[in-house]
Amino acid sequence: MPENENAYEGEEGAAVAVIGLGQMGARLAEAFLAAGFATTVWNRTAAKADALVARGAVRAGTPTEAAEAAALVVVCLPDYDTVRELLAPVERSLRGRVLVNLTSGTPDSARTMSERVTALGADYLDGAAMSGTRLVGRPEALFVFSGSGEAFRTHRPVLASLGNPVHLGGEPGLAAVYDTALFGLAWGALAGFYHAVALAGAEGVDPAAFAEVAAGHMPFVTSLMTDHARQIGDGEYPDADGTVAVHAAAMAHLADTSRALGVHTDVPDLARLLLERANLAGHGADGIASVVETLSKRRGAARP
Amino acid sequence: MPENENAYEGEEGAAVAVIGLGQMGARLAEAFLAAGFATTVWNRTAAKADALVARGAVRAGTPTEAAEAAALVVVCLPDYDTVRELLAPVERSLRGRVLVNLTSGTPDSARTMSERVTALGADYLDGAAMSGTRLVGRPEALFVFSGSGEAFRTHRPVLASLGNPVHLGGEPGLAAVYDTALFGLAWGALAGFYHAVALAGAEGVDPAAFAEVAAGHMPFVTSLMTDHARQIGDGEYPDADGTVAVHAAAMAHLADTSRALGVHTDVPDLARLLLERANLAGHGADGIASVVETLSKRRGAARP
Repeated sequence: MPENENAYEGEEGAAVAVIGLGQMGARLAEAFLAAGFATTVWNRTAAKADALVARGAVRAGTPTEAAEAAALVVVCLPDYDTVRELLAPVERSLRGRVLVNLTSGTPDSARTMSERVTALGADYLDGAAMSGTRLVGRPEALFVFSGSGEAFRTHRPVLASLGNPVHLGGEPGLAAVYDTALFGLAWGALAGFYHAVALAGAEGVDPAAFAEVAAGHMPFVTSLMTDHARQIGDGEYPDADGTVAVHAAAMAHLADTSRALGVHTDVPDLARLLLERANLAGHGADGIASVVETLSKRRGAARP
Repeated sequence: MPENENAYEGEEGAAVAVIGLGQMGARLAEAFLAAGFATTVWNRTAAKADALVARGAVRAGTPTEAAEAAALVVVCLPDYDTVRELLAPVERSLRGRVLVNLTSGTPDSARTMSERVTALGADYLDGAAMSGTRLVGRPEALFVFSGSGEAFRTHRPVLASLGNPVHLGGEPGLAAVYDTALFGLAWGALAGFYHAVALAGAEGVDPAAFAEVAAGHMPFVTSLMTDHARQIGDGEYPDADGTVAVHAAAMAHLADTSRALGVHTDVPDLARLLLERANLAGHGADGIASVVETLSKRRGAARP
């Protein structure tokens, strides 16, 4: 869609500038180029831009030259210290532009960066790539953003070339909050999967055969998350999916089975710990989502 | 589809008999009736059949009378001891029929039951409802079966009224293996979700808002499972989704963040334990699916 180039091409000539061409930064620039957006790139090791230049990117000589090339400036660097160091000489060039920061960091570091950037007269969007580098540019690649809603809406067509861009809200720390929380969620699911593969494998089940059935089961598990989130919001835990006590008994059985098959019991042990804590807090006859109530040590903190 | 009644109505007059009308058994009978199959039911406490009889089910006076009413006999009871006790007087009536056992149990108990039932001249299918009772009758309700493939194919149309019936293979213990393994998988995912909700909640994020984004992220997590199962089958762990060492560092960060926000660190601690074990086994530079190699204490057991 080359007409998009003009729609986002200001006096600077580029729709977007990408500063930092590591594994993720390079994929971002590739996705912008593939979607037909004029893209200016900069990287400390200039050779990392060669492949992108061959695909039509414009190479900037300095971070400032890159930032001045576009209204939308994307930085993706190893850490916030590097962001601060590289942007220091660029600061006077940021006024009127949008800085999108896809560098991993804490919610607090995002908030501080937002204050600094907005004080310069620029708009700030913090972002996180939730689907690793492999899927960048495909519609299922989730990118979460937080900060200026207006900047997000203005540049949404460019950001959409990365995948599925979701604006979480104006609070700039939100992208980092979701990034961190979703990482834990993914690992819980993967730990459960690896345990399941080991258990089924001990009974002679092929990993790919198991994964096929497991993949068919995950939409149901996901639907439980949606239901349970509503329960957590309401602070009421009906037992339609089984009580804490019933799940604790079943989980003890899973631990026994794992042990009998020579598989480490870490995953069932984690679930037993969560269930036992909920039980001790009086949730034995409640639904399992009540586990959330005892995960946060600050009473009620899980229910804002 | 009332024409199905005739297709499966033998000389006995019913397409299916359901023995045991607890929470799950009653839902199974409801689903058969809703799909238009003539259904005979029996329960020790006869009153539990009343609602089903009002919807068209035929009430049997004894388990034997129920079994003799249909070529397909479904039992769903609290435990295997109850199954053995109830079926003892029925045994001579099972010849030529198919017994489908949806009672929860171990793979070994399913194998023993299969031997006993096939010795009587009947076919045996072990089964497990993977989506709880709520979804029974809806296409997304996964039911896994193992045992006689011929019996499964013959009665698939009746079983399909329960949801999505999947035949795992002829080995009768497989349904129990998958049931147990998928329960652990679901709990890993739910533990990760509850932790994530608590963490995001500590930063002021509403559970339902978080769940919406999380639900959009789960297809990606599921795609990792499918990819990683292939890696596990091959015994090769490329690092395209990050190495064990990189994930261990990120997980330490998640534990720190959790602690700082007053959220229990059980979920990141579990992941750290799995990653640390993989690292000690020399998988630090491998992809994270290598975690499976150290989950089973029997070397190579995860790769049949």
